[in-house]
Order: sequence, then structure tokens, then C-alpha cells
Amino acid sequence: MPRYALKVEYDGAGFAGWQRQVDQPSVQGAVEAALGRLGAAQTIAAAGRTDAGVHARGQVAMCDMAEPWTPFRLSEAVNYHLKPARIAITDCAEVPDDWHARFSALSRRYLYRILPRRAPLTLDEGLVWRVPRPLDVDAMQAGAAHLLGRHDFTTFRAVQCQAQSPVKTLDRLDVVAWDGPGGQEVHLHVEARSFLHNQVRSLAGTLAHVGAGAWAPRDVRMALDARDRTACGTVAPPHGLALMSVGYPQDPFAPVG
Amino acid sequence: MPRYALKVEYDGAGFAGWQRQVDQPSVQGAVEAALGRLGAAQTIAAAGRTDAGVHARGQVAMCDMAEPWTPFRLSEAVNYHLKPARIAITDCAEVPDDWHARFSALSRRYLYRILPRRAPLTLDEGLVWRVPRPLDVDAMQAGAAHLLGRHDFTTFRAVQCQAQSPVKTLDRLDVVAWDGPGGQEVHLHVEARSFLHNQVRSLAGTLAHVGAGAWAPRDVRMALDARDRTACGTVAPPHGLALMSVGYPQDPFAPVG
Repeated sequence: MPRYALKVEYDGAGFAGWQRQVDQPSVQGAVEAALGRLGAAQTIAAAGRTDAGVHARGQVAMCDMAEPWTPFRLSEAVNYHLKPARIAITDCAEVPDDWHARFSALSRRYLYRILPRRAPLTLDEGLVWRVPRPLDVDAMQAGAAHLLGRHDFTTFRAVQCQAQSPVKTLDRLDVVAWDGPGGQEVHLHVEARSFLHNQVRSLAGTLAHVGAGAWAPRDVRMALDARDRTACGTVAPPHGLALMSVGYPQDPFAPVG
Repeated sequence: MPRYALKVEYDGAGFAGWQRQVDQPSVQGAVEAALGRLGAAQTIAAAGRTDAGVHARGQVAMCDMAEPWTPFRLSEAVNYHLKPARIAITDCAEVPDDWHARFSALSRRYLYRILPRRAPLTLDEGLVWRVPRPLDVDAMQAGAAHLLGRHDFTTFRAVQCQAQSPVKTLDRLDVVAWDGPGGQEVHLHVEARSFLHNQVRSLAGTLAHVGAGAWAPRDVRMALDARDRTACGTVAPPHGLALMSVGYPQDPFAPVG
């Protein structure tokens, strides 16, 4: 059966996360239902199992189809059947039989958006985490420096996390001021081969404490060294987070040269 | 009575525009109702009377209050009473009695966002105009060059426009590629002392024709010279448009030095 990679964008609000649930709407369930109407095998896999309320700009999933499709036609047909769910296939490519959306992935990149302002949100509601106080980006970056690289991230791990080891390697953790349409935002760009459950949101909540001056940058190091969930700052809300892209040995969506 | 300038952000969806209506929800009506609970004179004025569905990031309004307020406390109190409307006061400043939100304004700057892509929108729904084909930004900029400066804009004017003269001066009309979260967008930055009704949306729709290759850049000149509403391209939808800022001889919101 021909296999296809799908780039998937979605609004996490209203979904219990990527993973199929028996009794709640999930992104996987919606995409599988749309594919099922086109002759796909029922179960699909994705690179990142995003949590309830977390968005995606560049989730990557795969499906096996009963018949060959032109990738463009397949994405159009899936999008047609996905309506009116806030999920869209933004790219599609045929991939080899041994390519796997999850197991072939080398890295996942997330963006966490924080908007420090007093006023309630209007146009940005549901897309950024509003923090009603100024944030010191330099202090946040200094705190983030303690987290870069390979560490035991027990402090920044949800109790329900099922990963076998709490040791992960953060390849990128940049704190960047970004001039957004609703005010100056603070963006956290995070990249790793894989993450613990709630890891990025735990990092974001902790670094927001640093930005607000409640913690010194070195307190992040102490929290990390404690290897204790109770040493973590607040877990930031899911709607500020989006899975931006997934890295593979070769980009399956790159135009064929 | 002390006078205050308010910077107002809103999601235009669900409002019949800025201006108060007898039988439909308006932004002005919502802000006046909130101010009315704080002892404001009932009628307020704003710099730009945005149309139904058009957003604002930096609308400027003014109000006269029965009692003096700290600007910060006033903005907090108005935001409290505005809930749950998607309207927020993002800044507030005391201004002199002879300052007027509309008549003191020297310029209005709008941003029109176009996202050329096939896939339906998810996170950007209601914030950009999706055009399901590639757009040639250079061609659009070449077309825009014909519109810059002082012209009779009859072609780009709604039939219900109440302006006395169709002659306006566009001080800025830049077409810029912008790497947005949902794909590469085309941004139209437009600035003028004042605009005709539907002028920006008429320009955006016409330039999208040029970007798609249906019109040559010089066809924009011919449409302008025709001074005929029927020579205009499509009027672009309101949800791609936002009033970004209003220029005054002195920025009322600048921190007092």
C-alpha cells in the first residue's frame, strides 16, 4: 500500500490532544475519520503526541492508502472531509514503505508564545499566554542557559509521563523578544529529539517566573538539580504552545529536484 | 471634564463596525456602555470608523469623564466592564480639552494580510484573507506604485461612500512578503491622512488580481484613470484588514519624559 506523509496544522482548542480517545474529540480521530472515507487503513501515526489544547503548525503524520493518490489530490480530499474541524493538511508527499512519521523523526521544534500585557486579549486570544507583568528577556535567557544540553529533567516532567528515562537533550532553547501585532511577545524556541510529557510547558512556566523577577536565573539550575517535580515553577497553559516542525534525515516535503 | 485618549484593540467579527447602530452590536456602543458605568459622557469619538468585520490593533478613541482618573485605573475599569466582548483598551492617557481623537489625527495606518495557500485556515481563521493561489509580490508592488500619491480614487470607492471628494493622497502603499506562522503572507501597509469607504479593501482586491496574474501591473493605472467603480477588481473581505495605528502631532501615549 502506498504511504504518504501529511503535514498537519490545527487549533488545539476543542481537542483532547493528538491521540485518539474513546470518548473525546481528538485530532488523530478526526484525521482518521476523514482518511477512512478515502480508503485509508484506519490507524495513523504522528511525530508528536501533542497534549490537550496544544496547537500544531507542522505536525507530521503518515497514512497508508488502498490506492495510489496524487499527493495534492489526497491533501485536498482530506481537507474536504475534515471540514468544519479546525484541522488542515498543509502539505502531502509520497514516502517509502519503511519511512515512519514517528520513528524516522530526528527532532521536534516547539514555539511557546508569551505576551506580557495587562489588557485582556482580543485577536490573539487562544494563541498566546498573556502574563500581566513585564518580563526580563535577558534574565529568562540566562535561566534557559542552565537547561540547554543533556540533563535529568525530572523536575520538568508531568507525573503521568510515560517516558522510560527522565534524561533528555535540549538542542535549542532560545528566548527571543518578538514584535507581535498585539505587543512585544516573548518567544521560546525549543528543539530536541524528544520531550517528556509537559516538559516545554514546565520550562515556559519556570522561565516566566524568572522573567517576572520572582526567581533568579540560577534558581533554574537549583530546580533542575533538585530532580523533584515540586521544585518546578507553574506549568504554562497549553494554548501558548505549538509544534512547529519535525526534522527528518531528508525533508519528505522538499520539492523533488 | 477631564479628557482621555484610549487605544483600542478589537476583533471586528461580530460587530457591525466601529460606529454605533440602533439595532446591531458595534464597538463604539460596547465601549460607550462600559464607560457609561464609570461616569463618562455618553458619546465618544474615534479616529477611524472601521467597517463591519474590520479589526483594530491601534484604534484611538476619546472620552470625557465626570471625575479625574488615573489613566491606568481607567483602562483597567473599562476593560473590566467590556468583558466578554473581544475589545480591549491597551493604553490610556490624559489629553488636553482641545485634543480630538478624530480631528487631531494626521494619518491612519492599515495592514491588509493575505495568505496565499490552498489549505483551509485553522489558527489564522478570521485574521487573514486566504487566496488559494500563489501571488507575485513584485508584480503587486509594481501595480501599487501607480496608486501612491494624490489621485481621484473613484474606482476604489464604495457606492455608499459619504466623503465630499474622491481625491485622496496615499502616503504609503507597500507590498511586503512576510514569513507568517501559517505560511508566507503578503502584507499591504497603507497609510494616508484619510480614506474613502472600502478604499483599502478595494486596493487589496485589485492588487490580488495583479498578484495572481489576472491583471498586469499597468492595468491598475487604467482602472484608476477610468474613475469608474465598475473598473475595480474584487473588494477584499473585511477580516484581512486591521487599523494598526493613528498618527498625531504628538503621540498622546508617549511616556512623559
